[in-house]
Amino acid sequence: MISERECIKMIQDYAARQNSEYLVKGIGDDCAVIKKDESTHLLFTTDTLVEGVHFNLNWHSPYLLGRKCAAVNLSDIAAMGGQPKVCLLSVAFPQGVPSWFENFMAGFSGLLQDYDTLLVGGDTVKGFHGIVISVTIIGEADKKHICYRTGAEAGDMIWVTGPLGNAAAGLYLCQKSLDKPGGPEGEMQQLVKAHLDPEPLVGLGTVLAKSGLVKAMMDISDGLATDLAHLCSESGVGAEVKQEFLPVSQALKQVAAAKQIEPVDWILRGGEDYQLLFTAEPSGEQKLRQLTADHVGREIFIIGRIVAGKGVYLCDKDKRREISYQGYDHFQN
Amino acid sequence: MISERECIKMIQDYAARQNSEYLVKGIGDDCAVIKKDESTHLLFTTDTLVEGVHFNLNWHSPYLLGRKCAAVNLSDIAAMGGQPKVCLLSVAFPQGVPSWFENFMAGFSGLLQDYDTLLVGGDTVKGFHGIVISVTIIGEADKKHICYRTGAEAGDMIWVTGPLGNAAAGLYLCQKSLDKPGGPEGEMQQLVKAHLDPEPLVGLGTVLAKSGLVKAMMDISDGLATDLAHLCSESGVGAEVKQEFLPVSQALKQVAAAKQIEPVDWILRGGEDYQLLFTAEPSGEQKLRQLTADHVGREIFIIGRIVAGKGVYLCDKDKRREISYQGYDHFQN
Repeated sequence: MISERECIKMIQDYAARQNSEYLVKGIGDDCAVIKKDESTHLLFTTDTLVEGVHFNLNWHSPYLLGRKCAAVNLSDIAAMGGQPKVCLLSVAFPQGVPSWFENFMAGFSGLLQDYDTLLVGGDTVKGFHGIVISVTIIGEADKKHICYRTGAEAGDMIWVTGPLGNAAAGLYLCQKSLDKPGGPEGEMQQLVKAHLDPEPLVGLGTVLAKSGLVKAMMDISDGLATDLAHLCSESGVGAEVKQEFLPVSQALKQVAAAKQIEPVDWILRGGEDYQLLFTAEPSGEQKLRQLTADHVGREIFIIGRIVAGKGVYLCDKDKRREISYQGYDHFQN
Repeated sequence: MISERECIKMIQDYAARQNSEYLVKGIGDDCAVIKKDESTHLLFTTDTLVEGVHFNLNWHSPYLLGRKCAAVNLSDIAAMGGQPKVCLLSVAFPQGVPSWFENFMAGFSGLLQDYDTLLVGGDTVKGFHGIVISVTIIGEADKKHICYRTGAEAGDMIWVTGPLGNAAAGLYLCQKSLDKPGGPEGEMQQLVKAHLDPEPLVGLGTVLAKSGLVKAMMDISDGLATDLAHLCSESGVGAEVKQEFLPVSQALKQVAAAKQIEPVDWILRGGEDYQLLFTAEPSGEQKLRQLTADHVGREIFIIGRIVAGKGVYLCDKDKRREISYQGYDHFQN
């Protein structure tokens, strides 16, 4: 057996052996980047969702599953500051195509339309067991504005674009409320929605990228502890996150209190929030707050600071402990 | 349940509702086609291979499986007359990544390199059961030379670029020789190779496209009867295939005779030959033969003629029977 990280390293090594004028950035970022013309680059991303691993049809309606399959890929384009353009869909069904696939397609193509993304190709094949959905999205970005994971420098502030851990708490609620008709109620719905129907932050990503203030950016798909460790590793820096700065929703606090769960696990290690994580120099703070409030009506949050060295550390009062890569690894679940 | 054809129709319908200057050709051809610049179009194709449906590791070595996963997608680019450029790979493993994945990657990336195609993105996820491999390849072509499925007209000759049925016979040999150490021998290896390690005809596709003589083209992945029916349907024409004209290898004839199998089933309905199927006016015959002999040292074969009306018919002496879509449907096996 090879670990997931070794496996990706192997693919990276193969990719790194290639020399090309055409290739700007291969594996190791949210998207691969290819030259299109003098001013524009193409962005490529692919993601696979497996039944029983990434989704469960007991609580994920086909319509929302369709939206999510689009959203997680749109989020990778958003994380580079790009505009999604075209999409290819490939689905493997074990027993032929179920009739609910029509609802899946309504959700999938509806979300693509919301982001002016064309569905241009598709393939359905017979699977052996379980449903496997692969999506590829190609986007574009002005090459001056693309945000990679590699630009963070010591002294930068670390930002996130919204509360963390909601999707992980939502998944927990889905799992626990399986036996209760109707599922979770009221404010809890916000958490369930974060898991079932995440929003790809394409507009926000573009605003941040065009600001010229963002030095490194990615989306949070595997949890803050893991994804910030990736960003630091790609930039050759370390990070200190202040626990008290982490944005947490009231709903998450309530569920954690009611269930006697320590919320920091969801916040640091829960995957699938699809918030954007970025760094910028401290001098850019006011302008960044103003831009995001004006253009997308959204508050953004400083959670810590990039430091020299390596590793991601969580600082809580006088304690400081390493949390690098303490995220959600699908192979360890 | 929805049939595979209904399912693809559903995706097509969603795609057809889209209006865009950017999209040249959506679903319904070997690749989707997008404008890149004034003279060049981008080609997009995606294919998924599922363990137990599309490949069997009992006889498919990981190295050759890697080559085949690249080849079937390169073949779609070849079928439009394009040049492959970049590739994304997504793999789902049920139990973590097996150590043979290194051999898979050697085969996969080796074939990509042979065709100057960059591996730029990858994703490995935990699968639930069975291995699922999704590959996306993006290519380019001069927009003047792209060959679609839609251009065939009554009176055109129908051509194929090599013998048919070898891959289906090779699969049969693999299945039957499982219990014999060493597997099939001698000439039979040609058939087994056609199944395990098909050649994507990228150079030949480009030569044909640039000739300006090809009116419609596609690759044969689901068997001649099905794929020619697709080409005819997209072009709004019918076809008559002469059984005596169908190119058949000596090895296939031998195996069919030895096993008392009617070879025409493999030839018409066997999938995965990845030969190119195209039409051209009769006046182009000599020039096409000369070009393909000069540039790729290859004989090509006329197998019939495009006719007015619809449906694909097989003509054998004075008999004429419809064979439209009598191909390999993964959902019916």
